[in-house]
Amino acid sequence: MRTHYCGDLRTEDIGATVTLYGWVDRRRDHGGVIFLDLRDRTGLVQIVSDPQRTPDSYRQAEALRNEYVVCITGRVTQRPPESLNPKLPTGEVEIYADKIELLNAVSKQLPFQVSTAETESVREELRLKYRYLDLRRDRMNRNLQLRHQVIKAIRRFLEDAQGFIEIETPILTRSTPEGARDYLVPSRANPGEWFALPQSPQLFKQLLMVSGFDRYYQIARCFRDEDLRADRQPEFTQLDMEMSFMSQEEILELNESLVCHIFQTVKGIDLPRPFPRLTYAEAMARYGSDKPDTRFDLELVDVSDLVKDSGFKVFSSAVKSGGIVKILPIPNGNEAISNVRIKPGGDLFKEAESAGAKGLAYIRVREDGEIDTIGAIKDNLSPEQKQELLSRTGAEPGHLLLFGAGVTDVVNKTLDRLRQVIGCELGHIDPSKINLLWVTDFPMFEWNADEKRLEALHHPFTAPHPDDLHDLKTARAQAYDLVFNGFEVGGGSLRIYQREVQEQVFAAIGLSIEEAYNKFGFLLEAFEYGTPPHGGIAYGLDRLVMLLAGEESIRDAIAFPKTQQARCLLTDAPSGVDAKQLKELHVASTYQPKAGVGSREL
Amino acid sequence: MRTHYCGDLRTEDIGATVTLYGWVDRRRDHGGVIFLDLRDRTGLVQIVSDPQRTPDSYRQAEALRNEYVVCITGRVTQRPPESLNPKLPTGEVEIYADKIELLNAVSKQLPFQVSTAETESVREELRLKYRYLDLRRDRMNRNLQLRHQVIKAIRRFLEDAQGFIEIETPILTRSTPEGARDYLVPSRANPGEWFALPQSPQLFKQLLMVSGFDRYYQIARCFRDEDLRADRQPEFTQLDMEMSFMSQEEILELNESLVCHIFQTVKGIDLPRPFPRLTYAEAMARYGSDKPDTRFDLELVDVSDLVKDSGFKVFSSAVKSGGIVKILPIPNGNEAISNVRIKPGGDLFKEAESAGAKGLAYIRVREDGEIDTIGAIKDNLSPEQKQELLSRTGAEPGHLLLFGAGVTDVVNKTLDRLRQVIGCELGHIDPSKINLLWVTDFPMFEWNADEKRLEALHHPFTAPHPDDLHDLKTARAQAYDLVFNGFEVGGGSLRIYQREVQEQVFAAIGLSIEEAYNKFGFLLEAFEYGTPPHGGIAYGLDRLVMLLAGEESIRDAIAFPKTQQARCLLTDAPSGVDAKQLKELHVASTYQPKAGVGSREL
Repeated sequence: MRTHYCGDLRTEDIGATVTLYGWVDRRRDHGGVIFLDLRDRTGLVQIVSDPQRTPDSYRQAEALRNEYVVCITGRVTQRPPESLNPKLPTGEVEIYADKIELLNAVSKQLPFQVSTAETESVREELRLKYRYLDLRRDRMNRNLQLRHQVIKAIRRFLEDAQGFIEIETPILTRSTPEGARDYLVPSRANPGEWFALPQSPQLFKQLLMVSGFDRYYQIARCFRDEDLRADRQPEFTQLDMEMSFMSQEEILELNESLVCHIFQTVKGIDLPRPFPRLTYAEAMARYGSDKPDTRFDLELVDVSDLVKDSGFKVFSSAVKSGGIVKILPIPNGNEAISNVRIKPGGDLFKEAESAGAKGLAYIRVREDGEIDTIGAIKDNLSPEQKQELLSRTGAEPGHLLLFGAGVTDVVNKTLDRLRQVIGCELGHIDPSKINLLWVTDFPMFEWNADEKRLEALHHPFTAPHPDDLHDLKTARAQAYDLVFNGFEVGGGSLRIYQREVQEQVFAAIGLSIEEAYNKFGFLLEAFEYGTPPHGGIAYGLDRLVMLLAGEESIRDAIAFPKTQQARCLLTDAPSGVDAKQLKELHVASTYQPKAGVGSREL
Repeated sequence: MRTHYCGDLRTEDIGATVTLYGWVDRRRDHGGVIFLDLRDRTGLVQIVSDPQRTPDSYRQAEALRNEYVVCITGRVTQRPPESLNPKLPTGEVEIYADKIELLNAVSKQLPFQVSTAETESVREELRLKYRYLDLRRDRMNRNLQLRHQVIKAIRRFLEDAQGFIEIETPILTRSTPEGARDYLVPSRANPGEWFALPQSPQLFKQLLMVSGFDRYYQIARCFRDEDLRADRQPEFTQLDMEMSFMSQEEILELNESLVCHIFQTVKGIDLPRPFPRLTYAEAMARYGSDKPDTRFDLELVDVSDLVKDSGFKVFSSAVKSGGIVKILPIPNGNEAISNVRIKPGGDLFKEAESAGAKGLAYIRVREDGEIDTIGAIKDNLSPEQKQELLSRTGAEPGHLLLFGAGVTDVVNKTLDRLRQVIGCELGHIDPSKINLLWVTDFPMFEWNADEKRLEALHHPFTAPHPDDLHDLKTARAQAYDLVFNGFEVGGGSLRIYQREVQEQVFAAIGLSIEEAYNKFGFLLEAFEYGTPPHGGIAYGLDRLVMLLAGEESIRDAIAFPKTQQARCLLTDAPSGVDAKQLKELHVASTYQPKAGVGSREL
């Protein structure tokens, strides 16, 4: 029976006889003495076997190779001074192996090195195909242990300090085609009908409030059949919470305590409180984004009023047609950023273009306070306007001012992107900094130009701001997002709890009363039987763990993720199935593969 | 802001001004004084409002009706002696309501009474359709809180006392058509291919052992598209565990500690340890079942050797054709059970018939030790045989001996059923008793007569007993079930961790090497890279909670269950979906409804 884990052994254990189980991380033969690094999930410890002191184990040790599975019994001893390893927690001790038992060998060439000592970078396809080996490696072992610690900290805080109760909601549920696409599941028992996998437990958690559970949480699996982006997965995990009888302020405070508890528990970091708050309007004005990275300044400046009558038509017509003109001022930008990069074909121009901008006007501020730009801009600025522009942007000699002009959304998106790219490039971002902030007062709706209708910005169950009920279409919502270094990690709202208001919101997004009852009748009916005021929030756990682990892909925060093509390279899912299975389900594939199509890439 | 929960108020709070939120459980108008029972998830407290002492709240109180949602502020006072309510934890106090705020009303007639005071039984269809109201009722509130406590106790024990790490495994995975039917999910990104929802995380948890995580657990959602029985659900929750480097004995001990911890935490019961153990062979011999209810005796007695040459052909030919003859001896059975019930048409006869038996022979033991039965039996028993039969079954005057004769499985199934029915009827079962036991040494395989092949009794990853490797087909498995009052609540095994053994087991169940690699290639390949010895267990959480709650249906242990027709009566899932959705997924329904079919029942 195991007596210790490898990584736990310390000088206090010297003299003890221990039994360890694990993998040979590395085997080194030092002229007659064999050293093994033995690894388990807690770390490494050095095993020594030599023909004199431990003849019984020596022959076994000779036969071992990397990643063999062994059981080793031996005595913990002090390492000699010259072989102390201060980098290893167990670096002051080693085990003289009295007995080595081989439990399982490696019979094929490893597709990549697993050893903690290896730093080779491995192609992600290979890592995902042999995920069981990838998870043995130090990086993924640490990431999954961190994930566990994060979830454990969340549970303890919510259960012990805040009286939340965990309740499971269904995975096989009803399709509610609002928002993203649903994954569907044919029902065999009810042929012709389909279950959907939940995009979130939203309606169930609201019904749990109607049921009086008061404070609910769940670490919930959610599903969205989207066209995948780098940081999305077909299935993902969210921390889902809902509370009754609490104001928005109380909800935000409780959630700040939760987030502080997570950081304190898994990182030992005490975050300053309260977290800063920005309204959506402020965030868009100052950063062009509703999830600004506030670790650095580079704030945007609106100059629409200054240039609205400018002779430079790009500016004035932008304002006249309802848009804006904004500036991203970049200290020392003159030196760092050449004209070539800003002009057509340059990388910053392309960045702007991909955000929808048609061009990228700029002003360079010179030593003498003079400005350097194209004539059309310069000639149309009066000395007073120029002065106001420099003072408003805080521009000093060396500043580069980048302009966005046009439709508000496009200008914000463009300057937000440029701010991030340039902030990163110019070293404005301190990677050790942790900035958390709330963004509040989101609009209820945004315009969907394709479908020519209003769409709920969060979801249609979000409560409008009580001051804005007179005009729902432009109302603010009682909604809030938690932003962590430029990533939205959580989002929530107070919910509608009155049938009339819910019907008005459905009407605003163009859902007829019949459609509304067809889709959400059970919710509307529940409102009739004593629904409490309630609100909640959901956190993207994969992303939160990714950020806490310092990773750049959520795949590195998930044990068995899918690729961007929504495939599992380990099990090769999805796959073809037996015709018999489909027949039993009363379904058929209508797919006609085209010749030459069908190659699979990551 | 809330200051207290209703159910927590005690005499220590007298004098305090409190703010409570909740539902009007009942409103009583006692000639000018209004009493409200205010309810939240913690329980009830009595609110008093009268026109003299609390004129401000009185008018509000008059307008309240059952299930209205209110906020009440008032002072906690001692109840007068004549109105103390010892049945209620808050029964010594009441609140004089200074202020009552109506937060939401009930605008429709309640489909059933919610009040804690009501004991009316409600049709399950109605309970499921209005589940949010059903969950408000005391019974379901308690059940879901118990479920939460059970899961919490499990997590704390495994994480804090045993070093388990929780890891999430995929819900969208690969179809492995062993065992039950899979739920399938068409892939839009990979048209013509399908995901399957997991029947259990079996393969992933084994791969996590290959990854070195050593001790894994998960509260895992699992899916089986079975023809539903009373105690099955299309989706269910299991506590899933897997451990490396542990013997079966160590695994059983750890799990006993876990189960004892659950009972101690949620029930305050200290279970005696170690739990009794029966081998599968013993359990079948003594109880005719691999999940015997050992709260009562009524053990079976094998008399095959005694009657194998009997002139009564029913007995002798049963033994000669490889079957058995067993007796269920019933003390005082003569008085309790009439011949009519045993003979064709009787309820016990029917019970036996439904287990596959053709008839039900019996012997009644009379006062003088004489036996009373049909001539064919009596005439073919020598005095010595009769004596041996009575002594072996411990029969005394008044005993009824029921016989099963024929194919072993049928005899066992028949007598197991009769034992349960009669044990229950004759009051042999003490409902307060808690009997837990391990059943071990299951056979590896059972014969599937339909498909004419061996089938894994547990699953094909179960390790054979090391003593039985010479003949896999009849080998015992290193498998174990935990049985709780006649219900299997957990089951597990040591796993195969060597490719050769796994291939042999696949061969034994008729899976060709090609099929095996096609289905489980990633597992077989993982065995090549240093797989540790490992084993695990899974518990049916819904059933465990059901038993701990004293319920008879797992639906009463689940917040939002499906009916036996696999429907959710609340959301009306599954449902039809938009043609556009199916088109995007490249699938179509092939179902042709027949006229007159399609009514939906529970």
